[in-house]
Formats: sequence, structure tokens, C-alpha cells
Amino acid sequence: MANVLTSKDKDYAQWYNDLVIKADLAENSAVRGSMVIKPYGYAIWEKMQAELDRMFKETGHVNAYFPLFIPKSFFSKEAAHVEGFAKECAVVTHYRLKNDENGKGVVVDPDAKLEEELIVRPTSETIIWDTYRKWIQSYRDLPLLINQWANVVRWEMRTRLFLRTAEFLWQEGHTAHATSKEAIEEAERMLGVYAEFLENFMAIPVLRGVKSESERFAGAVETYCVEALMQDGKALQAGTSHYLGQNFAKAFDVKFATKEGTNEFVWATSWGVSTRLIGALIMTHSDNNGLVLPPKLAPYQVVIVPIYRKDEEFEKVNATALEIQTTLRKAGISVHYDHRDTYKPGWKFNEYELKGVPVRIAIGPRDLEKNQVEMARRDTLEKSFVGIDALPNTVLEVLENMQKSLFDKALERTRQNTYSVDTWEAFQDAVKNRGGFIKAHWDGTAETEKIIKDKTKATIRCIELDAPDEEGLCVFSGKPSKRRVIFAKAY
Amino acid sequence: MANVLTSKDKDYAQWYNDLVIKADLAENSAVRGSMVIKPYGYAIWEKMQAELDRMFKETGHVNAYFPLFIPKSFFSKEAAHVEGFAKECAVVTHYRLKNDENGKGVVVDPDAKLEEELIVRPTSETIIWDTYRKWIQSYRDLPLLINQWANVVRWEMRTRLFLRTAEFLWQEGHTAHATSKEAIEEAERMLGVYAEFLENFMAIPVLRGVKSESERFAGAVETYCVEALMQDGKALQAGTSHYLGQNFAKAFDVKFATKEGTNEFVWATSWGVSTRLIGALIMTHSDNNGLVLPPKLAPYQVVIVPIYRKDEEFEKVNATALEIQTTLRKAGISVHYDHRDTYKPGWKFNEYELKGVPVRIAIGPRDLEKNQVEMARRDTLEKSFVGIDALPNTVLEVLENMQKSLFDKALERTRQNTYSVDTWEAFQDAVKNRGGFIKAHWDGTAETEKIIKDKTKATIRCIELDAPDEEGLCVFSGKPSKRRVIFAKAY
Repeated sequence: MANVLTSKDKDYAQWYNDLVIKADLAENSAVRGSMVIKPYGYAIWEKMQAELDRMFKETGHVNAYFPLFIPKSFFSKEAAHVEGFAKECAVVTHYRLKNDENGKGVVVDPDAKLEEELIVRPTSETIIWDTYRKWIQSYRDLPLLINQWANVVRWEMRTRLFLRTAEFLWQEGHTAHATSKEAIEEAERMLGVYAEFLENFMAIPVLRGVKSESERFAGAVETYCVEALMQDGKALQAGTSHYLGQNFAKAFDVKFATKEGTNEFVWATSWGVSTRLIGALIMTHSDNNGLVLPPKLAPYQVVIVPIYRKDEEFEKVNATALEIQTTLRKAGISVHYDHRDTYKPGWKFNEYELKGVPVRIAIGPRDLEKNQVEMARRDTLEKSFVGIDALPNTVLEVLENMQKSLFDKALERTRQNTYSVDTWEAFQDAVKNRGGFIKAHWDGTAETEKIIKDKTKATIRCIELDAPDEEGLCVFSGKPSKRRVIFAKAY
Repeated sequence: MANVLTSKDKDYAQWYNDLVIKADLAENSAVRGSMVIKPYGYAIWEKMQAELDRMFKETGHVNAYFPLFIPKSFFSKEAAHVEGFAKECAVVTHYRLKNDENGKGVVVDPDAKLEEELIVRPTSETIIWDTYRKWIQSYRDLPLLINQWANVVRWEMRTRLFLRTAEFLWQEGHTAHATSKEAIEEAERMLGVYAEFLENFMAIPVLRGVKSESERFAGAVETYCVEALMQDGKALQAGTSHYLGQNFAKAFDVKFATKEGTNEFVWATSWGVSTRLIGALIMTHSDNNGLVLPPKLAPYQVVIVPIYRKDEEFEKVNATALEIQTTLRKAGISVHYDHRDTYKPGWKFNEYELKGVPVRIAIGPRDLEKNQVEMARRDTLEKSFVGIDALPNTVLEVLENMQKSLFDKALERTRQNTYSVDTWEAFQDAVKNRGGFIKAHWDGTAETEKIIKDKTKATIRCIELDAPDEEGLCVFSGKPSKRRVIFAKAY
């Protein structure tokens, strides 16, 4: 096929951007930093939402919806929180436009200035905890397990489609608990849900860990995270789950009457994943021919392309294609049958390869004679002939195999690029020339962490939850360390 | 039960507000005019979304996502459009906060002023048509059938939960077509989808019609609408579908190459329904005991309440309740089993009556002896004993019957309150004292429409699509009229 994408090896960032555009996933909009998520990209998000939503509900959560706007004064109530978000807030100051008196068109009406400015939510802890004060009086109101699907805005200066945009879509869970222990369990449970989703649906292996203090969410006591390694050796934070202690309960005065009759501040968590995950999906599996999608999240798992020249040929091919479509759908496989006569088969082959449809089935007159179809598998690009009688089982097997194979391949790559380094020279060389997850000793101070970041651009991605105790010396300062942490350059 | 709601007859508006609050559907937030949709209210919205989304997809539409913010200059490109929305726009002017130099806390950073202000979308025609210019080149790109689920903001001065809020959730379809005929067919098709959804799922009978010119969407050539009659005799616009002609294509220069090789402006539609529908649902079916929900949209169709005093009793009752839960779920019925020991059965009965759960099943030790349960039906408040062996069939029948019965009841009420009036005196009296859908002759002018509105507060809700030709004289001006139109006071 014609190479419509820049090669991954030549320019990874350009390859990524080309792919997002050419596979019709998203594009930059006229609003600086805001993207348009195109139908094919949005269909992947819908698949992801459906699975996550099911998992949230199975763990006892319900959905709700809180306001887009947050009064500035609320936003400032938790000191660390406002400090963390103040520099990237879109601010609504007026509520009306009017015709300019000098005929310069439509202008903001200066008489319609808000008494208190409103912040477009960058995250909803403050407005939600202000609401929870009214909802929580007694231990009987706990735990409160709520999730919200929403858009949020963080005014990023450098944006990249899906990975970092001013507006993005996400879910944010906000839970309230009677004890610290329950809140920590919840934060860990949701980290587990994210890890399971990433590994079993997105076919992306992850490290589970906690953030260092400097990398924590603004207002959190502990930030749990799942981190994934992209094909270019950079890490991507795929999801975070925060144990918030009583910080927001204290900021918004949310207390509850215990069974014993005392009054206590409530314990909290929050957790979220966003459309950024689509960036992770692309960068984990795709190749120079385009997107590669795990079957469980593909908008359609199979595309059928009819091959014909004459109208009589189309009639026969079409009849069989429709039968196959029915057979596959009955087996629970999602199918797109592209019988448009405005595009040629070769064009369609390229298109669906670019779009990462897991299985392509082509049917021509000669195939009909042999009662077979040509099947192409997207990840390996292997082609084979399959008897029509062997459908849908062969397709089901291929889809299952592909889902597993994508995960195994990503896992193998992640393992090969996760390694220990013990000297500062080796560390610098590793960050610069090899990339990947670098396991190194760290003295536990924010000072050292900052120097390492300034000198190498590598950050502590996480302290793995299952990291073994291991005495050592900090790779930079030489001071004692109790275990290795994971360093990497990150998206 | 204790009357926690104001009576409908005493104060309908207060009854509505009480109900929304007490049934845990929504509440006012700290942000003026913005509501919090609580989990139970949101669960109804999720049910509605699921059905509508399925119907949109079955009619060939796909979802996408466009930016929340619209540059002010885009917003002004279609003259009628900006005129219609300018007075209710939230405007983002800055993108950063900072600590005040005089220690007054966090303030808007004056250095972070946007060069061009951004409007928080009140609807997305402008940003979408600016995007469509890039997506549409040829007839092969048409029709383009896209829907978006999103939040929008219209700065309303007087707000009411669900019915009129500054921020609300909705879907907005935006389609592009090669011919005027196709666009009109699309606008009518989607009106049909809305009517079907309202009647078959929400159990709300509707009139299908077009708006008068004054009531048209800002930028539309024709606005189709479905109108429903609430229990207090006021009308509610439940959904609109707009034929936009080439207005937005011209404003945003969206042309396509025809099969014949000419270049033409594209034809457009847009259509939407919102969380306002939840207000319609409440006001159509509910009573002085609380919410009444059609089974097809109830978050759970059946609630099971165990009755017991001693622990041994609970064990037996619980075992049977769990079996019944399984039996019902297997039959496709959604069930909530409330076995909390922190609330008494009487409290639960009131609670689920307030929340409009269609069927309540209570099980106590005496019921177990008789191998039966007590079943209460929410709409009629009838109670009966049902043999456990007759489950789930009896429940399925009741649910089906209730769905139909709610529609029939609302249809009968709407019919009784739809009537013709022929003199100005009778018209004024009808609006003031009887309400309902008033069929009257109108001379077709905006002037008369405005005078009638100013004098009586009644507006033209629609000109029914199937209104028969009937010569007559305008109820106000006495000038000739070709058919009756529907007047009502409206939400």
C-alpha cells in the first residue's frame, strides 16, 4: 500500500499525529487546544465507556451529574488543590453578548459581568464535596459511591491529540467513606478496575504503583496509578486513583454522625481515566500501516469487502456477503459490510488497514466457486482462505487469539524495556539512549527527584505496589534507599 | 402515608419542586441556575439515553464530539443564530488564576486574557459547520449523519429543575445532505423518532407539528416539534427538529461537488432533546404520593422489601427474596432488593412510592407459609397477593399493562383538554380558566401572534402536521385563516 503515514522509526511523534488524522480518529479544532473527536474515534471511546461503566456498576457505583461551572471561592477552599490547578483554568466572567454600539459586530456586554467568576471544571472535587455536605449526615449515608462522565478543561499550553488537550472527556469517581481504611480499600479497588480494564480490554500491560509526593494529585494524601510503556520507550500515565484522606471533607465541612454518636469528618477518594487512553491504545499496538485495535474495543471487528466487476457478479457476491454478515452477527461479532460502489476494493483495503479493523473478509466470484472467503488479520497482516462453512468459528478464534497476542506482544516489549540501573552515568545513558522503565534507587527526597528531572527529563512514574524491599544507594545522591522506583520519560 | 409533598391541586409548581427534591432526582447547586442531577434522576436519563441512542443508530447516525468552546467570531457568522442566543451566553475571557498580590486570595490573572473570547456552547451548529467545511468535498461525503451527547449552557434568568436550567444535558444531531428534499425528510424522520420515543417509552402522547416563524429555532427555515400536555393544562415542547436549509452552509462556506460536476451549498438539519424530558415525564404521570414511572424507563422495575422481626425470620425471608430476585432478573426484569436493616419496611414503602418504582413486592413470614408475596402496583396503588409460582409472569403482565395504561390515561387527558374555540372572548376565557391545547384560527401574522401572547400569555405551540384544511376567521383579528393552530400556555 501507499505509505500515507510517516514511519514510526523516522519520527514517532509525526507518525502518531498522521495516524490519528488519517484513521479518522480526531483532529484539531479551531479552538486552540480543543480537539474534535471524529465518529470512528468516538466509537472506540463508546466501547471503552461501556466496559468501564459496567465495571463501575459491578463494584457498586452509580452515576450522577454535577455542574460544569465551579464558583471561584469553592475552588480556592483546598489549598493544595487550587495551587495545582490555578494556572490552567478557563474562567467565565460574563453571561451576555450584545451588538457593539460602534457597529463592530457582537461584543461582550460589560453590564453582564458576574459578581463571582466561574471556573470551568478542571476536575470536580470542590463542587462535589460542597454538595456532599448536604447529602451526608449519618453513617447510614455512607459509603457514597458516585461516578460522573463529563468534559473537563485544563488550559494546557502544548497540546497533542488525545494525549493532552485543553478540553477532554473523562469519568471521575468521587466516593465518601466512614473510615480511612475503607477509603484506602476503595482507592485500591478502583486502581484494580483500571488495571483489569487496561490489560483485559485494551491489551495494555501496566505497572501498578503509587506516585511520589511531588507527582501526587493536588489535594491527595496518596495517588495510586497505572503506568504503561509506549513503543517509543516513553511512559504514559493511564489512570489514577486518589486517597484524599479528610482534606476535602475538612475544606467543605462534611461530617457524619457515627453509630457511636460522635461526629467525624468523612474520608474520600477520587479516580479517573480519560480520552487520553485512546492515545495509549494507539501508541501500544499500531504500526506503519495504521491503527491496530484489540478486538474487544474495535468499533467493528470484521469488515466485509465485496469484489466484483459486472453487476451479475455483484448480485451473487452480495447475497453471500449478506449471509456471512448475518452468520457473524448471530455469533456476537460486530460487522461492517462496505458495499459502496463509489470506492474500489483496493481503496477499501487500505482504509480498513489504516483504521485497524481486526479482520477483513473479501469475497469475489472465484471465492464463491470454491465456497470460501479471503480473510486478512490486521495485527500480523496474514492472509488466508477460509471455507464459508468454517465461519463464524474461525473468526471467533482469530479475534480471541488476536486479543491475547496483542497483550502478549506488548507485555514482552514492556519486560524487555524494564531494567535496573545502578550508577548515575548508566542512568543518564539509559534515559537518553534506551528509554523504557528504569528501576533505580532513589533517596526519597523531592530535591533529588527534581534534580534528576531537570538533568534528564526522567520522572518517577511510580513506586510499584509489589516492589520488593531492597537496600541500595540512590542513583544520584548516593544516599540510602529501601527499594527501587520506576523512572521514565513520560507523555 | 405521611404527605411529604405539597398537593398538586393546591400548588402545582410547588408539588413539582417538592417531588424532584424528595424523590432524589435533582437539586439546585451552588452555581446559580445549574442543577445537580442525583443518581436516581441520572439513572432515568441513562435509560432514556440508551433507547434514544439505539434509535439514532438504527436510523444511520453515528456519535462524535465537538468542542465545548466556540470562538465568538464563529458564533456571529449566522445572523439570526447569534441574535437568538447572544443574550444568554456564558463567556470565557481568561485562562488563568493567580494569587492576589494584596493577599486577597485567588484572583483572575489579568495577563491571561484571551485575544478572542470563547462562548460556552448554547448549541453547536456554528462549531460543527465550521468543521464540516473540512469534511465535505464531494457528494460521496453525503449524507453526513452525526449526533453528539453533550452539556450546553444558556444563561436563563428564571430556572426550574429539569425544565429550564442554565446548564443542561442533551443530544444534538447535525446532518448534511445533497438536496433540500433529503434534508427535509431527515428532519421529519427525526421528529418521528422523538414522537415514537415519547409515546412508546415515556408513555407521553404528543402532537407533531411545525412552529410559527416567531417560534422557530434561530437560523432554521422550518422547526418541527413534538408538544405534550402536562397535568396542569400547560404545554411542554418535548423535542425539536430543524430544517436549516443552506443557512449554515452559506455562513461557513460548505460546498460539495455534485455527481454532475457542479459545486453546491450543502443542506442541513439539526435536532435535539434534553434533560427537560425528565420534567415532562414527572409532570405527565406523577401523583400526590410521588413519582410514577413508565416501566420501560424505570431505573428498576421491581423493588423487593423483606418483612421480619427476628433474625430467624430474616433468614427465611431473605432466602426466598433472593430466589425471587433471580427469577425476575432471568425474565429480563430489573430488580432492586432492599435488605438494609437500617430502615424499617414502612419507611421503605414510602420511599419507593415517592420514587415511582412500578412494582413493589413485600415478603414476610406469613407470606412464606402461603407461598405468596404481596405485590403493590405504583400507578393504581392496588395491592394483591401473588403466588410465588406465578412469578415472573404476573409481574411481566403488570409491567406491560402499566406501560400501556399510563399512555392511555395521558392520551385520554390530552384529548379531553384539546378543543376548538372560535371567539376572542371564549379564547381568553379558555386560556385563563381551562388551559389545554386550544385549537383556534389565526391569521398567520407575527403581529397577531404577539398581541395574543401579550394579552393572554398563550403562544402558538404548533401547526399540526395533520391539521385539516378548514377555512375560518382569526380568533383575534377576524381575518381569514386556512386552518386551526394549537395555542397553549407553555413551560
